[in-house]
Amino acid sequence: MNNKLDRKAQAQLFSEARTFNAFLDKEVPDALIKELYELMKWGPTSMNCQPAYYVVVKSSDAKEKLNKALAPGNQQKSLTAPATVIIASDTQFYNKLPELFPAYPTAKDLFASNDAFRDATAFRNSSLQGAYFIMAARSLGLDCGPMSGFDNKIVDDTFFPDGRYKSNFIINIGYGDATKNYPRGPRLAFEDVVDIL
Amino acid sequence: MNNKLDRKAQAQLFSEARTFNAFLDKEVPDALIKELYELMKWGPTSMNCQPAYYVVVKSSDAKEKLNKALAPGNQQKSLTAPATVIIASDTQFYNKLPELFPAYPTAKDLFASNDAFRDATAFRNSSLQGAYFIMAARSLGLDCGPMSGFDNKIVDDTFFPDGRYKSNFIINIGYGDATKNYPRGPRLAFEDVVDIL
Repeated sequence: MNNKLDRKAQAQLFSEARTFNAFLDKEVPDALIKELYELMKWGPTSMNCQPAYYVVVKSSDAKEKLNKALAPGNQQKSLTAPATVIIASDTQFYNKLPELFPAYPTAKDLFASNDAFRDATAFRNSSLQGAYFIMAARSLGLDCGPMSGFDNKIVDDTFFPDGRYKSNFIINIGYGDATKNYPRGPRLAFEDVVDIL
Repeated sequence: MNNKLDRKAQAQLFSEARTFNAFLDKEVPDALIKELYELMKWGPTSMNCQPAYYVVVKSSDAKEKLNKALAPGNQQKSLTAPATVIIASDTQFYNKLPELFPAYPTAKDLFASNDAFRDATAFRNSSLQGAYFIMAARSLGLDCGPMSGFDNKIVDDTFFPDGRYKSNFIINIGYGDATKNYPRGPRLAFEDVVDIL
């Protein structure tokens, strides 16, 4: 049985963590991105389906391409972040289920024959994986600026021209510049959104 | 700038964490559920929209009702868990945006006039919030068994008869019984799902 994490760790993950709009001029090495993936990959997905695909945009060329898809208010944030990660999902994720979820050998057929179920599963689970990515980044001392203000079609046409992957949302990562933070937004009260039956 | 969490905390959140199918006979007090919410509520959502709504099913009566919606393989897991949490989303979340995201006073109109955008935003962000719930539960020493094998319509008709909330997925929580765990499923290799540009 596990204990509670200490207050400092809780603060780093949740209570003092912020969405960053600007980042310090400090690189995010590829080795750290690998360490991040090796941590977040353990987060649970339904039937262990792991539909997410991650494009880590670091070079100026790739940043320029991505920038064309972003809402104007998000362009500068992404250009100046050490990396912008496109959280996408694999429309063919179910073909990997025989390997990923051997307990249910015919699981793949559930998705092959039902596009709505396939799309909802890909969307829900790649979103979960995006959240695990944020939490794992924070666990490694990185800061995040997640964004959904962009044109998914332009991103998909640019980065996934064969149509296999679909963008879900994007996350700037790096070491945040707290002097550029906005005031923190209010959160909904426990009494208004939690019902104990 | 934050440091990396220590290996033990990383293990508790990710690398040693498991999906539990059975739980010890140990209560999850309402005060701990409140502590969990007060932690996970800080996770980021787009425009701070926070669409999730949480029904914590603890009583036998409510458990019996929920059980009618579950896939047969999930019924015993839920009945014997100290609590089963329905992660739902508020179809009217955008009405709270003037309060939650005052920087963009007309944001609410974007959703009121576009059902597809409204539904995708509610689904993506309530999924993120469900993932934050899992990570916050683990931060507090709790174990989780998330599930999407259930009939959403039955859950919605039973728990949300006025149609305002829609179930997304459910999470058993408690203190896990590791002797009932299945073998851990494989995870996809970094090289196969991460592309650095």
